[in-house]
Amino acid sequence: MSIVRVGMIGYKFMGKAHSNAYRALPMFFPAVWKPEMKAICGRDAGGVEQARVQFGWESAETDWRDMVTRDDIDVVDINAPSDAHKEIAIAAAAAGKHIFCEKPLALNLADSIEMLNAAEEAGVKHMVGFNYRFSPAVQLAKKLISEGRIGTIYHFRGLFLQDWIVDPTFPLVWRLQKEIAGSGSHGDLGAHVIDMARFLVGEFQEVIGMSETFVKERPIPSAMTGLSAKGDKDAPLGAVTVDDATVFLARFAGGALGSIEATRFAPGHRCTNSFEINGSKGSIKFDFERLNELEVYFTEDAVDVQGFRRVLATDSTHAYMDAWWPAGHTIGYEHTFTHEMREFMLAIEEDRQPVPNFVDGVECQAVLEAVDKSIEERRWVAISELR
Amino acid sequence: MSIVRVGMIGYKFMGKAHSNAYRALPMFFPAVWKPEMKAICGRDAGGVEQARVQFGWESAETDWRDMVTRDDIDVVDINAPSDAHKEIAIAAAAAGKHIFCEKPLALNLADSIEMLNAAEEAGVKHMVGFNYRFSPAVQLAKKLISEGRIGTIYHFRGLFLQDWIVDPTFPLVWRLQKEIAGSGSHGDLGAHVIDMARFLVGEFQEVIGMSETFVKERPIPSAMTGLSAKGDKDAPLGAVTVDDATVFLARFAGGALGSIEATRFAPGHRCTNSFEINGSKGSIKFDFERLNELEVYFTEDAVDVQGFRRVLATDSTHAYMDAWWPAGHTIGYEHTFTHEMREFMLAIEEDRQPVPNFVDGVECQAVLEAVDKSIEERRWVAISELR
Amino acid sequence: MSIVRVGMIGYKFMGKAHSNAYRALPMFFPAVWKPEMKAICGRDAGGVEQARVQFGWESAETDWRDMVTRDDIDVVDINAPSDAHKEIAIAAAAAGKHIFCEKPLALNLADSIEMLNAAEEAGVKHMVGFNYRFSPAVQLAKKLISEGRIGTIYHFRGLFLQDWIVDPTFPLVWRLQKEIAGSGSHGDLGAHVIDMARFLVGEFQEVIGMSETFVKERPIPSAMTGLSAKGDKDAPLGAVTVDDATVFLARFAGGALGSIEATRFAPGHRCTNSFEINGSKGSIKFDFERLNELEVYFTEDAVDVQGFRRVLATDSTHAYMDAWWPAGHTIGYEHTFTHEMREFMLAIEEDRQPVPNFVDGVECQAVLEAVDKSIEERRWVAISELR
Amino acid sequence: MSIVRVGMIGYKFMGKAHSNAYRALPMFFPAVWKPEMKAICGRDAGGVEQARVQFGWESAETDWRDMVTRDDIDVVDINAPSDAHKEIAIAAAAAGKHIFCEKPLALNLADSIEMLNAAEEAGVKHMVGFNYRFSPAVQLAKKLISEGRIGTIYHFRGLFLQDWIVDPTFPLVWRLQKEIAGSGSHGDLGAHVIDMARFLVGEFQEVIGMSETFVKERPIPSAMTGLSAKGDKDAPLGAVTVDDATVFLARFAGGALGSIEATRFAPGHRCTNSFEINGSKGSIKFDFERLNELEVYFTEDAVDVQGFRRVLATDSTHAYMDAWWPAGHTIGYEHTFTHEMREFMLAIEEDRQPVPNFVDGVECQAVLEAVDKSIEERRWVAISELR
Repeated sequence: MSIVRVGMIGYKFMGKAHSNAYRALPMFFPAVWKPEMKAICGRDAGGVEQARVQFGWESAETDWRDMVTRDDIDVVDINAPSDAHKEIAIAAAAAGKHIFCEKPLALNLADSIEMLNAAEEAGVKHMVGFNYRFSPAVQLAKKLISEGRIGTIYHFRGLFLQDWIVDPTFPLVWRLQKEIAGSGSHGDLGAHVIDMARFLVGEFQEVIGMSETFVKERPIPSAMTGLSAKGDKDAPLGAVTVDDATVFLARFAGGALGSIEATRFAPGHRCTNSFEINGSKGSIKFDFERLNELEVYFTEDAVDVQGFRRVLATDSTHAYMDAWWPAGHTIGYEHTFTHEMREFMLAIEEDRQPVPNFVDGVECQAVLEAVDKSIEERRWVAISELR
Repeated sequence: MSIVRVGMIGYKFMGKAHSNAYRALPMFFPAVWKPEMKAICGRDAGGVEQARVQFGWESAETDWRDMVTRDDIDVVDINAPSDAHKEIAIAAAAAGKHIFCEKPLALNLADSIEMLNAAEEAGVKHMVGFNYRFSPAVQLAKKLISEGRIGTIYHFRGLFLQDWIVDPTFPLVWRLQKEIAGSGSHGDLGAHVIDMARFLVGEFQEVIGMSETFVKERPIPSAMTGLSAKGDKDAPLGAVTVDDATVFLARFAGGALGSIEATRFAPGHRCTNSFEINGSKGSIKFDFERLNELEVYFTEDAVDVQGFRRVLATDSTHAYMDAWWPAGHTIGYEHTFTHEMREFMLAIEEDRQPVPNFVDGVECQAVLEAVDKSIEERRWVAISELR
Repeated sequence: MSIVRVGMIGYKFMGKAHSNAYRALPMFFPAVWKPEMKAICGRDAGGVEQARVQFGWESAETDWRDMVTRDDIDVVDINAPSDAHKEIAIAAAAAGKHIFCEKPLALNLADSIEMLNAAEEAGVKHMVGFNYRFSPAVQLAKKLISEGRIGTIYHFRGLFLQDWIVDPTFPLVWRLQKEIAGSGSHGDLGAHVIDMARFLVGEFQEVIGMSETFVKERPIPSAMTGLSAKGDKDAPLGAVTVDDATVFLARFAGGALGSIEATRFAPGHRCTNSFEINGSKGSIKFDFERLNELEVYFTEDAVDVQGFRRVLATDSTHAYMDAWWPAGHTIGYEHTFTHEMREFMLAIEEDRQPVPNFVDGVECQAVLEAVDKSIEERRWVAISELR
Repeated sequence: MSIVRVGMIGYKFMGKAHSNAYRALPMFFPAVWKPEMKAICGRDAGGVEQARVQFGWESAETDWRDMVTRDDIDVVDINAPSDAHKEIAIAAAAAGKHIFCEKPLALNLADSIEMLNAAEEAGVKHMVGFNYRFSPAVQLAKKLISEGRIGTIYHFRGLFLQDWIVDPTFPLVWRLQKEIAGSGSHGDLGAHVIDMARFLVGEFQEVIGMSETFVKERPIPSAMTGLSAKGDKDAPLGAVTVDDATVFLARFAGGALGSIEATRFAPGHRCTNSFEINGSKGSIKFDFERLNELEVYFTEDAVDVQGFRRVLATDSTHAYMDAWWPAGHTIGYEHTFTHEMREFMLAIEEDRQPVPNFVDGVECQAVLEAVDKSIEERRWVAISELR
């Protein structure tokens, strides 16, 4: 069994999810090369040390430059804020480290291409964190499509609905500031749906969208961490500079029609990352809030018992599930990261690029920017205009 | 096209449902013999005249004895209160009329047997109003079982849950008084589940039950009609003399295990008449609150897409549905009565006994009484003890 | 009780639905003015006579010009093919008859405006058949929005998904031919969603769409009626000249974002006419395949029990339901027409315009055409460009 | 931060689940005393060593007697086969170790009482593994009931449905042999439902049941492990000596009526551990296959929006959830063990007995045996008869 020594930059929401995945791999996927949690890095010495102890890393660093050049590191895992991705990734590539980078790959397409090129030139493995691909139910969707059991795809409808900022007195966290976050719901949530569409349906051809910021000013918070923030509702207001919601139409290269929506203004939806696909031989529905389930319909079922099946993708026949628990014993959100990191380890072991990799990060970024451009110019924009 | 002349006794909830069915038949099932709404009968002259006009009957009677002997009547439809069923049915049989009788057939088994014998001796058609059999989704369940697609049946779980008397200040309506209603939720709701079980699984062998009256006294109402009543919450209290809930276990002659529950104390359940059947080759689920749907599971489905299918039983391939609307356009509660009356007309036309008939009414009554006896004597009671 | 004498033109799918509604009104809504089914009209003498008998009309006509001028007719009900609406409606108005016209009001906006003007000038009542408004669950949605319980509306997502022509050998019925049907799924299904959006959210401001015809040629049928057709799969092919699917984005005048999709290529969806609305205080979901239900979420619910409620809109407190059956006893598709015709009768009785009326037909047509224009010109089109 | 040194006996399904929980605690619940995975024990030296490495234990033992007396062990975790529980637990108590014991506590009531007494006399902490209590959604159910928000409880309906042995050629694994397993679906699955009922509704008063073995002989397997087995379908047959299904009625001391069913013959149900509770002020529904959700109904909701709410119990307000991920990001089966072990650690830290403990194990066993006795003697059996 070989060891892959990991250095991780970032220790908040994603840092916790990744750490959990590294800890789970040797136990649940013992046949795969094993990650060693070598070093965790963050700017705040106290915070990173606390995370080191809690998450179980060997050492801590406060300057990522020091970490990416450490001899005892094989992999750099980047889950720092999005505006830091590019510089770190390029340095890591230069140091010959394999790179796992959280989505969005970069703040814009040009940067993401630069990152891809750096990684390719350095000959390192590169992966991007579209974790939702790694739900067993989504893998089942992919399998059904690949095997032709859904037929030619006509429609893709993707939604990512949340509701955590519906309250207009919710404070102006960094995710609502363009200079730090790059984008709002479009880049944060829509990116996941775009990747899912690419994974299952194929490449986008052209798009047109619209977006809106429903609450234009919010109280400036006194402190914030991760998704949450504490603030005074009567604090001075600052401008929200990202989109609260973005909706767009798409044509896929394969001929399918798509509609994609990302919003943080859908009360009742804590995390509805859902899609439906209709093809000539059947349909598929998925909702992340019930991530163990896939709904599937086949036109060829006997005429008197046609209907959407609720498949609980927890049988040992379903992807990854023989590693976990008996049929019917469900898994959760965090398991998508474990499966994702398994793919990363496996790709290193097999000396191939993992999937999804920076190419997927670039392509997703191209679609995101095509949508932005279509909004700005109020016209259909072909993805090819941006590449 | 032949005409079947109907005289109906009763004009409340069931009278309305039956009238609607008679009105619908010629339009939606024009090939079947046509009911003619000859006479409606009720003790209150004003009330019955109003119903006559509203429901569209030719004439009104206030004494059922006058009606059952009218020469221009072929069929007597009995939906008067349960305690009047027996006398009317026997008189109707004596007059040579075909009989449709609402469930429960009678207040007790002995009476129901007497009614069956009278009808058989008179050589008339007789039918009992277990309308839920006539949902297309239930007919689909029957078809799947009959064709062996569910295999050997292991389990039947039946529930009839309502919540209209959960409020302890709801008044003491006649349905809560044993001398008029005969029984509480057991006879009112449980009877439907028993009939469904007999229809789909087969005969009961032995039973044991328990029952409870959760609210033992209620305000005596000033006036009541149908299911509703108006009353003063501070009115004097009277004793509730029927069961609020009855639950029982059953063994079927075919070897299946059954559990059946009827209650009026299940908040949130307006009318959950549901069942699940598990067999060696599959399972079936039905809930009357979604009566157009049947959930079906087959063990022989491909291993990666096994799951309960939600079949919308509205395709033209499903029972009765070519008479109504295009696929996906649902029907409602009242349609079960139209289908039921279609069977009645068809049986007369084809000179055979309709199904379900008084035999089914008798068998259902036997199970009801076996449960009552099992509760009283705190022991398993075989149905054969009562026949 | 006053009588409203109806003459109806058309006797297929919609003619059947309207006839059933007229028959149901006196029984279930006896307090409202009563329709008298005076005459039914169709070009085929045999066909219309058969419908006359089956549906229960007094007389039959084969030339609509004869009928609209009959002295014994107060109302003309138009459910003939769409291309005949305009001429009939204008003649009916000229004859001083009240008019009920099925949707789409006309084949294009100009015609629909002409119809509206004719009706307004004649001073007659006019109504258009957007029947889905009349589901009790939809009425509940309207009530919640009107009372401010959903707050400011941010999102409208509307879908009308069907699957009856997914099979590429399904024949080339008239609904797939532009010269007769005017439009494909957009005008047939999308129109209903547009009306629902206008009813619940308000006026559209601008739109942009895309459409597709997935199966471009189909076998020419030998005979057809209503939605179905018989044909040889090996028959010569003819061109499909309408859209199989149309999807569009919208901005509403009130600031909400909308996405609307109509398709006949969604396997498993027999008739999914659904929408979701998100507002500042809650959300609403509806699916016509479960038309008795409305899902509702309120942000102000206690923090530990927030969740979408499945409201079964069958209590007597819900619109229309005290006319039907006890709580939990569901209704079906056809009841929406009964409620619709009740509104029509009531409007005549109260001497006011019914809702929805030709104004709504015109506005819906304007949105449909704006979408068509946006597709043709590949740009956002304001509704105001067309009015 | 104090350390609790654990020695675990058993390393299959439950051993894996417990190991995962111990590994997760320091990371997700860092404030609680920390388990140290000191030693794992199993009879097969090769198997236990493999598990030691995979699960991350410090050392391995092959004789539990050696382990329970080790000085460096504070806690003995027993998840060996059920027939070994008693001897180990008593020895562990004698050695002054705290004890965690998987359910069923013992093979019979007498043994379980002996275990309880031993633990009490030794003054050690004792806990029993009813892990389903530790779903956040179940904790929410408990909270609602405790706060009186459901009112007086009238009904408990509990089901544990599985389908892994429906195929009659599935081999005769040890769980189907009474001498090893003690019981079939009743003790394996029904025990969980009984504990859930006790947790939420209170003590049982009397019961009556029935059971069945549908497939009476099965092929003798060549090898087996955990839930699975490999075997030749044509192998010689051996007798199944446990129940395939057991169903029983119950009266609770508090007056509620209960029905409980456990079966392995319910096709389509991989692991439906579900219950519904109806009370005077509302209802609660839970299904383990959707363990993040609780359905809740309140009679006091506004009359026009009454309905079951689907509460996703993943908000930070819900039990344990602030330790995991943001709202809407679900957890799975394994998390119930982490929460369970958290309670165990916390009880040690706070020097109190954990809940559920051996008393709960004993009470559950009493109900199980009362049901067995009721089946054997075909009569109602009071729980008090057995204590």
